[in-house]
Amino acid sequence: MPRFFLEPSALQGGFVTLTGELAAHAKVLRLRRGDEVMVCDGLGTDYRCTVSDMSSQQISLVIHSQSPSDAEPEVPCSVYAAFPKADKLEQIIQKATELGAFELVVFPAARCISLPDDKSRNRKLERWKKIAVSAAEQSGRGRIPDVLMMSSFRAAVERAAAADLSLLLYENENHLSMRQAVEAASYRSAAVMTGPEGGLTPEEVSVAREAGMKICSLGPRILRCETAPLCALTIVMYETDAFCPRRPEEKDDITNAESQS
Amino acid sequence: MPRFFLEPSALQGGFVTLTGELAAHAKVLRLRRGDEVMVCDGLGTDYRCTVSDMSSQQISLVIHSQSPSDAEPEVPCSVYAAFPKADKLEQIIQKATELGAFELVVFPAARCISLPDDKSRNRKLERWKKIAVSAAEQSGRGRIPDVLMMSSFRAAVERAAAADLSLLLYENENHLSMRQAVEAASYRSAAVMTGPEGGLTPEEVSVAREAGMKICSLGPRILRCETAPLCALTIVMYETDAFCPRRPEEKDDITNAESQS
Repeated sequence: MPRFFLEPSALQGGFVTLTGELAAHAKVLRLRRGDEVMVCDGLGTDYRCTVSDMSSQQISLVIHSQSPSDAEPEVPCSVYAAFPKADKLEQIIQKATELGAFELVVFPAARCISLPDDKSRNRKLERWKKIAVSAAEQSGRGRIPDVLMMSSFRAAVERAAAADLSLLLYENENHLSMRQAVEAASYRSAAVMTGPEGGLTPEEVSVAREAGMKICSLGPRILRCETAPLCALTIVMYETDAFCPRRPEEKDDITNAESQS
Repeated sequence: MPRFFLEPSALQGGFVTLTGELAAHAKVLRLRRGDEVMVCDGLGTDYRCTVSDMSSQQISLVIHSQSPSDAEPEVPCSVYAAFPKADKLEQIIQKATELGAFELVVFPAARCISLPDDKSRNRKLERWKKIAVSAAEQSGRGRIPDVLMMSSFRAAVERAAAADLSLLLYENENHLSMRQAVEAASYRSAAVMTGPEGGLTPEEVSVAREAGMKICSLGPRILRCETAPLCALTIVMYETDAFCPRRPEEKDDITNAESQS
């Protein structure tokens, strides 16, 4: 079923109108009167709708049920990545969104090779957010992961350390494996942090440790800066059962209950 | 320590010579007499060497110890991916090599959008193998994953089904999660298989099931054809402890024992 993300404010009452880009996209999909579509508020609620009318400029939908998205992980996991070179961040955002990231936080680190200058920051952030929206639509997420930029490494660490499980993946850690860190804890929120191409400095690792982050290893192979965050996210998602199939029966039950109310 | 891959035949006796591209690469790294380097046979054995002589054309090394690579997963996991569009396969090969794949097997499927023609097959295979070598060097692997092309879907399935644990990840599977499939079994070899952009057909899934593969789900989010194989590989590597840190002490013990023998 086609999915569209709309601002929550556009989802008040029993009707929705798709205009602009969304209407154009609906035309590409050759939607017709009577077709079912899913509209998502990007915050985790799905609205099942039927196309009631189409004009050249807009498409009208009737909402006939709503339910919590069944594609959202139970344990939110934030991904903290140091600014990488070139288009690597776009890859990270796209893939992390598919895998179920709650949000993406980029931050500067001492060995970052490339940092966006003040002029391009907002333009880039805009672009990154669009990549998250597009990946959320394609992968069937109910929530659009936010993309945030931190002004300093310390600010990133302090924010990450507030999660129940807060892990820094560090290639020079030789004792604690990510598995030990993930299995040992009970947590309702998680954060995974990885460094830039040149790695984090020992001083940065100390700052993270002092802030309360656990320092752990992803093993003896050196992962690229775009591979490590996705690997760490996959492990947290796996351990918190976010890769289990949705049960169509349960989903339908909720939908029916909602539509009868 | 810099790593170089050489043919096993070049590693007979106590001396090694780097020539051609390898010598040029050593120059870029500004190696000098007395520097230590690691030479790998690409089959899982590492040779610790010292630079003994340098000329304009070649670099001579003395082997002073050898040991099994400590960067290789204990359970080999083969990655079977349907031919994807454009450069996605290059991404899969590069990242799967970092993550620890034993080998990469590409195969045709009914909904593949892009298949290499007979003319370009060998050229492409050559290129893909080079990507695996380069990723193995950068990530510190002791083994270069082979890249293979299967001539048919059935041939791929039959080969994959020979692994102890043989999983087909299918987006329409609503019952068995990858976790259930991975945890339930005891296995000394694994294979994970994923489809092309348009997904596998129900008939293809039946062929795989009949051949003995387990069909399982990666959850309610639809993963891209380049994300799914890496996600599945990460899970197998995680479950078989391939992301645990190497223990430098153990490593040194082995090396010393070898060098004293």
